[in-house]
Amino acid sequence: MGVEHDAPNSRIGEQRTQEGQPDRVSGGGDDAHSASESLVFPALAAPAGRHYGARRIRRRARVSASATPLVAPPAPRGEDALSALISLLRDDIEACNRLIVQHMQSDVALIPQLAAHIVAAGGKRLRPLLTLAAARLCGYRGERHVGLAACVEFIHTATLLHDDVVDESALRRGQASANALWGNKASVLVGDFLFSRAFQLMVEDGSLEVLRILSSASVTIAEGEVLQLMTQNDTTTTEDQYLKVIEGKTAALFAAATEVGAVVAEQPAAAQAAMRDFGMALGVAFQLVDDALDYSADQQALGKTVGDDFREGKITLPVLFAFARGDEAERSFWRRTLEEREQKDSDLPEALALMRKHGAFADTIARARIYGDQALAALAAFPDNAEKRALAAVVDFVIERAR
Amino acid sequence: MGVEHDAPNSRIGEQRTQEGQPDRVSGGGDDAHSASESLVFPALAAPAGRHYGARRIRRRARVSASATPLVAPPAPRGEDALSALISLLRDDIEACNRLIVQHMQSDVALIPQLAAHIVAAGGKRLRPLLTLAAARLCGYRGERHVGLAACVEFIHTATLLHDDVVDESALRRGQASANALWGNKASVLVGDFLFSRAFQLMVEDGSLEVLRILSSASVTIAEGEVLQLMTQNDTTTTEDQYLKVIEGKTAALFAAATEVGAVVAEQPAAAQAAMRDFGMALGVAFQLVDDALDYSADQQALGKTVGDDFREGKITLPVLFAFARGDEAERSFWRRTLEEREQKDSDLPEALALMRKHGAFADTIARARIYGDQALAALAAFPDNAEKRALAAVVDFVIERAR
Repeated sequence: MGVEHDAPNSRIGEQRTQEGQPDRVSGGGDDAHSASESLVFPALAAPAGRHYGARRIRRRARVSASATPLVAPPAPRGEDALSALISLLRDDIEACNRLIVQHMQSDVALIPQLAAHIVAAGGKRLRPLLTLAAARLCGYRGERHVGLAACVEFIHTATLLHDDVVDESALRRGQASANALWGNKASVLVGDFLFSRAFQLMVEDGSLEVLRILSSASVTIAEGEVLQLMTQNDTTTTEDQYLKVIEGKTAALFAAATEVGAVVAEQPAAAQAAMRDFGMALGVAFQLVDDALDYSADQQALGKTVGDDFREGKITLPVLFAFARGDEAERSFWRRTLEEREQKDSDLPEALALMRKHGAFADTIARARIYGDQALAALAAFPDNAEKRALAAVVDFVIERAR
Repeated sequence: MGVEHDAPNSRIGEQRTQEGQPDRVSGGGDDAHSASESLVFPALAAPAGRHYGARRIRRRARVSASATPLVAPPAPRGEDALSALISLLRDDIEACNRLIVQHMQSDVALIPQLAAHIVAAGGKRLRPLLTLAAARLCGYRGERHVGLAACVEFIHTATLLHDDVVDESALRRGQASANALWGNKASVLVGDFLFSRAFQLMVEDGSLEVLRILSSASVTIAEGEVLQLMTQNDTTTTEDQYLKVIEGKTAALFAAATEVGAVVAEQPAAAQAAMRDFGMALGVAFQLVDDALDYSADQQALGKTVGDDFREGKITLPVLFAFARGDEAERSFWRRTLEEREQKDSDLPEALALMRKHGAFADTIARARIYGDQALAALAAFPDNAEKRALAAVVDFVIERAR
């Protein structure tokens, strides 16, 4: 499959790999990277004495020369792609982090406690970064984008909490997620709190257009999540259905995050639409890569948990490729393991071997590249500036983490 | 305790007691009444072949002469208190029901399917009724209140779905709720859909003031629900904490529902505040009565499930009364059954006997009457009209269902 890995970047690795910092194990697939210490909340400790989860080995993003043909000049070689954006936006990020901490407070003690757990372990904050970057790229000079970035992160955190709710039929998973620590019900209710808080903050901001964008995104996210539930364990799922799932559960919030940045910058409709298109394509690419990585034997070698989707019977693009290209015996294998969920220890290695045989991993990444190019094409309309170059590098970051 | 019951009102009983209509068994305590057939969706069938739950015996609301001292004239004697309001608002209610059906649609089939289950079984729709009534009481002649009433109902339905999520530690309950039919995860996600849809509809309405009221109410509801979770199984819970729980989980949405009615009618701030006070007091009274009814042996005689709160270890006002007034042996009983949750068959009758011994039921209802009087006092500021008289009768309805 031509997948290769750099050694973990030691600078990032040193800063992020803290003992006792519980890693979130998410079904949402958004915790693979934790790019910079500036995004972490040192003040938000996990509940004392409850340190679950293994330390995570981080993969290093590589900036490839080939992936930024549509904007020039590309981000500096050799520099971590997300780090460029982070150092550009450092003040905004810190302001956003302060807002997040401030607004997850409540007199009800369990709320900040549980919220801190997920927020502290939450990784790279890609979505609020997109809002901040989009606004600055569009020349915005105010502060509203900071609050709206916090809203985007709250909505994302709420969906993660709800995504982790364990079904009655799936109790055996036993994750180190918030729901494993505090139970399903607390996760659901704190998710509701964060979601409601997001809307409260948007109302304070006062833009009905922003409220329209983010409430519509929230509807679409829920629809995507429910559709995922319906297609789970169903190998007759079509590529179109799969695409609809990931557009909903992942890309809709990316699209809203970037569109909101253009809206606060009072850009014309065409620029808002281009920024939205950028986020949507980036989000689809992000989820495609995430779904590929779940079947990456090389990731397994690096210590990342592989096969979560397999164990849950999630129907993702690599599965659809392997299923479509497999013979009848292979299809029986997929039906038994994903539909019937009868799995034994040798099944995951077998699944990985079938993926390799049919090029399912590589072709999923190739598909992600197409969306990455769409994202870069959407950026082309904007004048060249540091934020634009950094956002182009984010596209690389999202795709090249699979290498 | 002086609790007495009328025979079920045959007119209402006939219309509502439909075979095969699955009753929702809720932890939210809001499905005791299903007042009128006009609130039911005949088109929204439950999933075929999945009829759980027993038919519910309905209790008849009585309008007592003594409970409406602050407004005159009282609603006609002998007429069901909620029916007066319903017939006044029939056109609005039908328009609201149409909107609810329309906006719970989605291309993702499971969403309308699950939503229909809870909406069809959802009972009396008290909260949207309050929005409709408040707007009309304030002289509003437009149609915006209909959409906002649907938003209120969607928020309520979402909280019911989330409230029913079964904790990992509480799987044994096995309810006939949406989560028993479709699993925790579907309930959570469809709740998210309805909640998001509510905000989308509010944005369409376009009032930032309405958005402020309902997003703040949503934050408060989540806080109340989490606080309830924290006080559950804790007999050291104080009355203040209990009051905060029910103000949050129940009264906040009642208050928002009525306030929004005054806001669309463009009432001055004092009238908006009075309408809000009315809803808040009514909501507290409603939950107090609900919590009392959970320990009503007479309700048991009528076939209603009694003791849900007891089995879950919920700390409600009747429990706080009985615990505070009990001797050490009795307190040990409450600690064992509610804190340790070691319960045997004879414990519920014992709990009911202790409630009776200490007047816990009657004193909880007496407390509800105080809030009912506050609600009526808040109404006094408004000019006399049919909606005002009907809302005063709703106060009776809420309290007198305990008789």
